[in-house]
Amino acid sequence: MTINFDRLKDHINTLAQIGRQEDGGIYRMAFTPKEQEARKWLSAQLKSARIPSHLDGALNMIGRLEDTNNQEQPAILIGSHIDTVPNAGALDGALGVLVGLECLTRIKEENIQTSVPLELIAFSDEEGRFGGMFGSRALSGQLNPGIIEEATDLDGQALKEVVKALGYDPYQALDASRPSEQIKYYLELHIEQGPVLDVEELSVGIVTDITGLFKWQVQLTGAANHAGTTPMELRKDAFMGLADFAHEIPRILDENGSEASRVTIGNAALYPGSANTVPGKVEFSIDARDVNIEVLEEIKTACRKTLSAIARRRGLQFDFNEVSVIEPVACDAVIKKSIEANAKKLAYGYKLMPSGAAHDAQMMAKIAPIGMIFVPSKNGVSHSPHEWTDWHHIEQGANLMLNTILDLSK
Amino acid sequence: MTINFDRLKDHINTLAQIGRQEDGGIYRMAFTPKEQEARKWLSAQLKSARIPSHLDGALNMIGRLEDTNNQEQPAILIGSHIDTVPNAGALDGALGVLVGLECLTRIKEENIQTSVPLELIAFSDEEGRFGGMFGSRALSGQLNPGIIEEATDLDGQALKEVVKALGYDPYQALDASRPSEQIKYYLELHIEQGPVLDVEELSVGIVTDITGLFKWQVQLTGAANHAGTTPMELRKDAFMGLADFAHEIPRILDENGSEASRVTIGNAALYPGSANTVPGKVEFSIDARDVNIEVLEEIKTACRKTLSAIARRRGLQFDFNEVSVIEPVACDAVIKKSIEANAKKLAYGYKLMPSGAAHDAQMMAKIAPIGMIFVPSKNGVSHSPHEWTDWHHIEQGANLMLNTILDLSK
Repeated sequence: MTINFDRLKDHINTLAQIGRQEDGGIYRMAFTPKEQEARKWLSAQLKSARIPSHLDGALNMIGRLEDTNNQEQPAILIGSHIDTVPNAGALDGALGVLVGLECLTRIKEENIQTSVPLELIAFSDEEGRFGGMFGSRALSGQLNPGIIEEATDLDGQALKEVVKALGYDPYQALDASRPSEQIKYYLELHIEQGPVLDVEELSVGIVTDITGLFKWQVQLTGAANHAGTTPMELRKDAFMGLADFAHEIPRILDENGSEASRVTIGNAALYPGSANTVPGKVEFSIDARDVNIEVLEEIKTACRKTLSAIARRRGLQFDFNEVSVIEPVACDAVIKKSIEANAKKLAYGYKLMPSGAAHDAQMMAKIAPIGMIFVPSKNGVSHSPHEWTDWHHIEQGANLMLNTILDLSK
Repeated sequence: MTINFDRLKDHINTLAQIGRQEDGGIYRMAFTPKEQEARKWLSAQLKSARIPSHLDGALNMIGRLEDTNNQEQPAILIGSHIDTVPNAGALDGALGVLVGLECLTRIKEENIQTSVPLELIAFSDEEGRFGGMFGSRALSGQLNPGIIEEATDLDGQALKEVVKALGYDPYQALDASRPSEQIKYYLELHIEQGPVLDVEELSVGIVTDITGLFKWQVQLTGAANHAGTTPMELRKDAFMGLADFAHEIPRILDENGSEASRVTIGNAALYPGSANTVPGKVEFSIDARDVNIEVLEEIKTACRKTLSAIARRRGLQFDFNEVSVIEPVACDAVIKKSIEANAKKLAYGYKLMPSGAAHDAQMMAKIAPIGMIFVPSKNGVSHSPHEWTDWHHIEQGANLMLNTILDLSK
């Protein structure tokens, strides 16, 4: 049994028109008219596939396939999101939802009796207008009234006002929380958002873990001095402290990291920032990721020791603020096994690999065993109109998802 | 013979009140009311010292001490500037002018016959409202009509409009140019603006050279990628290219530099600059200085080779723009010898040292032998309300200047 590839392709192309802007990028920010238009369209597709759908309290759109024999069983959820970042491509989030729709549609068309209900879910605000993964946090019971009360977007608009304006009660997001007992598995297909499958010319990735991370905002403070009059050996050059640290990153990873480890300095600001002044202060970010919490802790310890030693050596003051910590999440062994067995059966080129990006699946892991299928991102690009995946990889990813669902719901 | 230290101290304190702001900093930007007030005050002091003064075409204020015996001789000019940067201290520029005023006042008071005329000069716009060292560039013949036509300040105000508003013809700045034959020596006392004399607990520095410099704006371009999904070995991280370069600076200086060499990265901007994105581009400044033009060229070559190699190794594109080049200038041997002989005679602790900062003297070197005396900057601080020099160092610096003038004008 295979998906209807022409229909999937048509769905992808049609949804990509909603929110498309003049420069070719797509923008469907959560809870805006363009995102509402996309939801309306998705709702119509579910209807024409004769899959009953509803919104939960967090405005997650859920299509549920069940029958009198299985309706009391815990469901398999297949999902992702249809909101986008600004200037997005056609696939991030949308692909996972449309592949899920296609799988459920085919199962419905073929009148296949599954042992458990199947649900398609389009989570609200994955991309973070109000902090990120709002819908999956709600469904997995990770919201509280304070979060709802305080959430604002970058323009200062309050989540509760925005949701109210759409005609819903924002506090009903707390009702979206579902007990573990209701959910057998959560499955998500997503573009890789990295270059690995593309470089290795593979069709699909079987996600083993979703990396955890810590983010620091670091400040090194020295002394701002005249670039001409201050001898090199009398400087307290904060930027050189940062350069020393950056230089140590490969060693820190060699000594403490795994193949999945990443450490990135993505922003840095030098003060006062004039060409003829030795920087007296530098502020920079550290984004460190790994799939193993112990490894992540060791990287953290190494970063702290390295920065402390550099600060001592250069006469700098070292301060940092832990901006966020996300624990790594392991994918479920049964699901991984099923995906791998089906990939082998279908003779697709695959690879077991970690996810370096965060996904709704990470939240769902709180209440259910999770599994993810990746398809390649051309040149590793995502969050860009240049984001793309070859159609035949999309077809293979969707067929692998369908076969996995059938396998797990037998 | 010594200066009148109480009078000098009083002058320093009085001038420091002009342009003093609520936060304690001083701001006398060139051609503003506060700077005009300072000029008026200086003119009054020259008058009360019975030293005739005038403005030249570039609005340099010149007080000239001459007599019928020496008026045809080339003059010794003693000068600096009274304009300031924002939030300045009391001494930068002002001290050199007030010490010059005190020296000429004492020589006048004692009715000393000098073999050459003596001129005190307060140069206009040293600090760079309109590009820097406007008055000394004018006097040394380094202006042209295009510079006058095009010069604007950071607020977009045109030099020519600003000068016109003060009641002067901006193009008369070209008339300020003076032939070499008119100038025997140019002398300038200035705060060191660096930490060397303070650290070594010396009263005065005898400047051997004023460092030259080159300034580059460098761009390294790689590829912006997701910090979580892009393996370390598949990155083209532009910031890591900058860090590699910063790490090589000590080697570049060890291999090519002198004791006077400085290389500074004072600003850097990462793009897109978000914590979870590998920087696809970095722009940064290089400010490199030395007293020897060949050394400076070797440092430049080494920077270029180092950056090229890093770019090749990391798959980055390396571009740079040479923003400015200033050739180093050597101080005159006769003047240096006179300053040193007088420092010894007066038993002052001194040191022969380069100037890492630019001064009006650098422009004046184009048309005259130059010499400079430094006094210590506490903790190396300048361009700040914290800028300071102990009074006894100021007194010794001023006495050394007086004795040097007397020696050179015998």
